[in-house]
Amino acid sequence: MVRVTAPRAWAVLAAGLGLAAAAQAADPLPSWRDGAPRRALVEFVAATTTPTDLRFVRPAERIAVFDNDGTLWAEQPLYFQLAFALDRVKALAPMHPEWKTQEPFASLLRGNLKAALAGGEHAIVEIVMATHAGMTADDFAAVAKSWLATARHPQTKRRYVDMVYQPMLELLGYLRANGYKTFIVSGGGVDFLRVFAEEAYGIPPEQVVGSGIEVKYAVQDSRPVIERLPQIDFIDDKAGKPVGIHRFIGRRPVLAFGNSDGDFEMLEWTTAGPGTRLGLILHHDDAAREWAYDRESAVGRLVRGLDEAEEHGWVIVSMKDDWIRVFADPARTRR
Amino acid sequence: MVRVTAPRAWAVLAAGLGLAAAAQAADPLPSWRDGAPRRALVEFVAATTTPTDLRFVRPAERIAVFDNDGTLWAEQPLYFQLAFALDRVKALAPMHPEWKTQEPFASLLRGNLKAALAGGEHAIVEIVMATHAGMTADDFAAVAKSWLATARHPQTKRRYVDMVYQPMLELLGYLRANGYKTFIVSGGGVDFLRVFAEEAYGIPPEQVVGSGIEVKYAVQDSRPVIERLPQIDFIDDKAGKPVGIHRFIGRRPVLAFGNSDGDFEMLEWTTAGPGTRLGLILHHDDAAREWAYDRESAVGRLVRGLDEAEEHGWVIVSMKDDWIRVFADPARTRR
Repeated sequence: MVRVTAPRAWAVLAAGLGLAAAAQAADPLPSWRDGAPRRALVEFVAATTTPTDLRFVRPAERIAVFDNDGTLWAEQPLYFQLAFALDRVKALAPMHPEWKTQEPFASLLRGNLKAALAGGEHAIVEIVMATHAGMTADDFAAVAKSWLATARHPQTKRRYVDMVYQPMLELLGYLRANGYKTFIVSGGGVDFLRVFAEEAYGIPPEQVVGSGIEVKYAVQDSRPVIERLPQIDFIDDKAGKPVGIHRFIGRRPVLAFGNSDGDFEMLEWTTAGPGTRLGLILHHDDAAREWAYDRESAVGRLVRGLDEAEEHGWVIVSMKDDWIRVFADPARTRR
Repeated sequence: MVRVTAPRAWAVLAAGLGLAAAAQAADPLPSWRDGAPRRALVEFVAATTTPTDLRFVRPAERIAVFDNDGTLWAEQPLYFQLAFALDRVKALAPMHPEWKTQEPFASLLRGNLKAALAGGEHAIVEIVMATHAGMTADDFAAVAKSWLATARHPQTKRRYVDMVYQPMLELLGYLRANGYKTFIVSGGGVDFLRVFAEEAYGIPPEQVVGSGIEVKYAVQDSRPVIERLPQIDFIDDKAGKPVGIHRFIGRRPVLAFGNSDGDFEMLEWTTAGPGTRLGLILHHDDAAREWAYDRESAVGRLVRGLDEAEEHGWVIVSMKDDWIRVFADPARTRR
């Protein structure tokens, strides 16, 4: 005799009534293949939102943090914000005749990206300051918004905002539907992120933590403005991520999701807390649908995360095996 | 003939049916006397939440910012966080024999507050660093929490957390019930505020903006910690308030409420934005129930706010005339 439990009886009944399709459509994570990461996420959410479960987390403590580049959207062949900065150098070049002979701008304008970036961090800072400072916050937001609306990725020919990951959008929505507040904690520029995070991810500006330059309040011709200054205020990367979390959020998250060693300390800080915690790392192992890179990559390098995930109990998410679909449908942002 | 309008007819009917008490109980601002400030608040909320009103503000943009000292709780005879720092100096003195001869500590320990603070800002920074740095963030939070649970105001003998203003609690709740996100934007220390803001005001840590010292992420004996360093990171006062708003919230508020000239730029930045905006200043003019101070006060000085409120369209709230009640019931936090 087959013993039919109440839930199972309900399922049989539902199937008989043709409700199976409806039940399936209600799956909050349709792009996540059944496997260890999906199961870990579903179990974590169920446990932390069930008041009778010892692992219950009260709503105010349900803070989930996500890296952006390589976690919520792609990051190859170079960070999208760097692509923005390079385009801005070209657009601003007519106003800067001195750039014709001044590195890293000279190489960049000749189309030699490798030579331009040979100066390492110093060269990148020069490029960022020349393109991200010296204007008001409103003007910067308008320039970034306009670029994001039109610029396209050199390989996929998609707009950058259409290179966000569908499974991550589903996860953000799933967490929010369960009382989680979702935050971005990114090494990228906070004011660049805030231009698109709300529309792309449903994450409002006040839930974006990122790197930033100094700003100053001023009244210009009786009009108050925020001026952007060519001086770094804060780098939200590596050990800077727990600092950014402390400074901007002020509470230790219970879930952290990253993809590179820049996220190591964020995962470490999150999962070392008391009670139930979940750390996840997206492994880019899908050369067919996206890119495959980890230990040797200049962008999104992942070494410690792979080596120490097991010891910390972090879940490695394989893009190839765990994701049914990679990118979100571009039509979703066409209105 | 008395013309009875529909609402009035409804009121008469409700009174006849014994519903007047119920209608009164549902007033979201029972401690606000009928007057210009109360009407401005009610009209602002109605207009910004009515989709057919030209002044409608979509929910994501409903950001309201509040100063803390002198706006949400009292600040006389000296900022409560300074009272905390002074108590900490006394508690830590046995571990610092050098303080017996070193200013500002020597004067402080002899009970001469005036002499201790004669060094001005430098003396205060010395006291804050000696009492707010050199420990982990968790340890600092525990110390502040313990002090707030027991320390009492020298004059009212109330606990400091019981010196929060009842009308402001009602306003915070009223705004939140109408889709507003309420933030603190204070010159006070962000990590001190975050210890009590959630319980006292229903404002979670991630919605507190304040002054801060540098912190550093470190792993001590395989235990990750946030270390507090004796170095100021950011002063969230005067022109620093719009900077703090930009940095932490990333969106211009539509409502700002302050009480001193330290809030001037916050109100200016908020109300200069496009669309519907509301700026309010609490005027401490109630020597009988609280304190009366403005232009000549060292703590909470208010000069420009009074002189320029009309020009900016800001609403002056008189504690004496506009508030039926000042402090919240201490019983509300006794559990």
